[in-house]
Amino acid sequence: MRLTHRYRFSASHRIHVESLSGEENRRLFGKCNNPYGHGHNYNLEITVEGPVDAKTGRVVEPGELDRLVEAEVIAAYNHRYLNVDLPEFQKLTATTENLAYEIQRRLDEKWRQAFPSGVPSLAHIRVQETKRNVFDLSIIEEAI
Amino acid sequence: MRLTHRYRFSASHRIHVESLSGEENRRLFGKCNNPYGHGHNYNLEITVEGPVDAKTGRVVEPGELDRLVEAEVIAAYNHRYLNVDLPEFQKLTATTENLAYEIQRRLDEKWRQAFPSGVPSLAHIRVQETKRNVFDLSIIEEAI
Amino acid sequence: MRLTHRYRFSASHRIHVESLSGEENRRLFGKCNNPYGHGHNYNLEITVEGPVDAKTGRVVEPGELDRLVEAEVIAAYNHRYLNVDLPEFQKLTATTENLAYEIQRRLDEKWRQAFPSGVPSLAHIRVQETKRNVFDLSIIEEAI
Amino acid sequence: MRLTHRYRFSASHRIHVESLSGEENRRLFGKCNNPYGHGHNYNLEITVEGPVDAKTGRVVEPGELDRLVEAEVIAAYNHRYLNVDLPEFQKLTATTENLAYEIQRRLDEKWRQAFPSGVPSLAHIRVQETKRNVFDLSIIEEAI
Amino acid sequence: MRLTHRYRFSASHRIHVESLSGEENRRLFGKCNNPYGHGHNYNLEITVEGPVDAKTGRVVEPGELDRLVEAEVIAAYNHRYLNVDLPEFQKLTATTENLAYEIQRRLDEKWRQAFPSGVPSLAHIRVQETKRNVFDLSIIEEAI
Amino acid sequence: MRLTHRYRFSASHRIHVESLSGEENRRLFGKCNNPYGHGHNYNLEITVEGPVDAKTGRVVEPGELDRLVEAEVIAAYNHRYLNVDLPEFQKLTATTENLAYEIQRRLDEKWRQAFPSGVPSLAHIRVQETKRNVFDLSIIEEAI
Repeated sequence: MRLTHRYRFSASHRIHVESLSGEENRRLFGKCNNPYGHGHNYNLEITVEGPVDAKTGRVVEPGELDRLVEAEVIAAYNHRYLNVDLPEFQKLTATTENLAYEIQRRLDEKWRQAFPSGVPSLAHIRVQETKRNVFDLSIIEEAI
Repeated sequence: MRLTHRYRFSASHRIHVESLSGEENRRLFGKCNNPYGHGHNYNLEITVEGPVDAKTGRVVEPGELDRLVEAEVIAAYNHRYLNVDLPEFQKLTATTENLAYEIQRRLDEKWRQAFPSGVPSLAHIRVQETKRNVFDLSIIEEAI
Repeated sequence: MRLTHRYRFSASHRIHVESLSGEENRRLFGKCNNPYGHGHNYNLEITVEGPVDAKTGRVVEPGELDRLVEAEVIAAYNHRYLNVDLPEFQKLTATTENLAYEIQRRLDEKWRQAFPSGVPSLAHIRVQETKRNVFDLSIIEEAI
Repeated sequence: MRLTHRYRFSASHRIHVESLSGEENRRLFGKCNNPYGHGHNYNLEITVEGPVDAKTGRVVEPGELDRLVEAEVIAAYNHRYLNVDLPEFQKLTATTENLAYEIQRRLDEKWRQAFPSGVPSLAHIRVQETKRNVFDLSIIEEAI
Repeated sequence: MRLTHRYRFSASHRIHVESLSGEENRRLFGKCNNPYGHGHNYNLEITVEGPVDAKTGRVVEPGELDRLVEAEVIAAYNHRYLNVDLPEFQKLTATTENLAYEIQRRLDEKWRQAFPSGVPSLAHIRVQETKRNVFDLSIIEEAI
Repeated sequence: MRLTHRYRFSASHRIHVESLSGEENRRLFGKCNNPYGHGHNYNLEITVEGPVDAKTGRVVEPGELDRLVEAEVIAAYNHRYLNVDLPEFQKLTATTENLAYEIQRRLDEKWRQAFPSGVPSLAHIRVQETKRNVFDLSIIEEAI
């Protein structure tokens, strides 16, 4: 059984690769490279997977999941300029692909603290930058 | 090829585990344990999978699928208080996880009657309780 | 300038008029009269109207509006069975038309406390029961 | 007859009033005052009103409306940091209320060039900052 | 109090004015003038207005409204090529503006049959051709 | 990492199998077999899969993907009557299942021209005919 919770955060970013020239950055990223950035209402879907608890009838205590995502992801990214405010995007380009990986890293770091048994597992991350532009990261759970 | 049809039903439920104390129920389920229940507009997605028929160009006769889902699921759940009106939730907690399993059970029971060849198969059930809260049940078709 | 904030609450209700016979209730309200009720994810839109403050550039302090709506409406209705849990629906039929009027009454009662100048005014209430079923209540501000 | 066209642009902004102290800005605007800004996918609805042309059966040549809105509004605001990139927000606070007025001003300036007869008129501007936060500006057409 | 019900129908149309040359039609209507037509999932919103009945707590018997709209509008337009299948578009150009007027005409013709008291009144018709293209027709009720 | 871009096109179609009698067509396809066709606003989701480029932080150059889909699919299908305007539906029934396969064929034909390295691969095609009716085609990338 999988459960998906949806979250939103508003942030701004600029797509700019330090090691490339200004001209090459503009050619590759166009208006996404505009010098002062621009922003989005990001939609975030976090999917967990696990067995349904026989007593509670639930795959996860939903408040526990929300507390984790809100503390580790939403509180950090909401109403921020990713390139400037976040340590992970000081060097890493703030594309939504990299954002998805960073969200995975942030959740992985605290997962065992929130879910000591490792159940449920983090199964999927979806970040929607705009209605036309959606990024999916499937997490293949390693055998333990 | 997979085809998904979307359905809606409005129902109410209360999350309450008989074997737990009132206090433990309140601690575990919060406002979802309020004594007289509350309700949702449930969105239901039923996905079938199979080959595309060479003559008709379709994976399923859509009216056949709708008749099955409406008779076995929508007619039973729509405008009902799940905990009281439905036999399956007399003992089983009316979480949406359990609701997804019960929908699978209801469809499985009549599948061969509606689709005697077993084609298409029931591949996936998604129940959206609210826009923030989505449950997915993938059905792994057993080899025949 | 008008500002609309959107809220959600999940509740259950039953459409039943005490002064009518069971048969007449069933004839008039059909499945909405089912004895144990059913539920919805209600969408609520609250629209305020007023001049834009020259200094802040805003028509209302949005946190102030949210605190009022959440305290007076969402906290009262969310995860409740309207017919049983709410004093106003002990005698009044819990149709969404009446729900809209009760939301107006609840907000009016505390409006001057939240906005002592009477600015902005409450201009419009929209309650969406389902995607197909929307109720609108325009509030004509009386001259002062 | 009214016709509404919907547009989207992604931009970032910071709510900050120069004449107020840093502390007062933070108190009034909270996380919207974060120093490096944040962003949104803005939805813009432009509504025109006029008679239906007897020959073409249309209230406006839709391409003409789109060219005007895209040249005067979308091209200017899309993928920009409003506070820094746009002359109008050098002094004016970049709230969405003020953004709606600036969109009206930009369209008014070129309206007669696009529609020399003054028909159709600009009737309404709606800017949705997030799904929860919507701003409406009704334009009362002055008698000619 | 206003109640809006939403309906959907799928139809095809071609924007073509008989009295204009082929070239002028192509210049005015572009791809909407393609010779064999194209189609849309139309969203239709019908808004009625009236007092809330003191006994039932409703502004209209919703089944009565649905029967009228489905019989007079949806049954006629759904899964049809408007230009060829519908008598009203034999001469009239099948723009969505004209479609809105024809929907009003069809409903007006049977309104008194469905609602002999004239209450509620038909207040507003909205036709959404695509997510970007919405047409609104406000009906000013004449004094009786 | 997967990236999904969403597109829209408006087209009309008629479900009709030449080798069947008129009566059998009507029995099988009902109103979808109406002689002059009907239409939809199709939503198309194209999903690509591949590694994230270490330099650009992207899985694909999004403009490259859009140019391919717009040239090969949208330009061909938008504002067309599929059965008459498109060579592939002269003999093939214009069901949405077949439409999904034809979109795959059109993209496959030009994929190596747009992405000479074969990276990213085409992973999934989703066509939504109406909000209730969605078709999914997963593409299993063959080992090279």
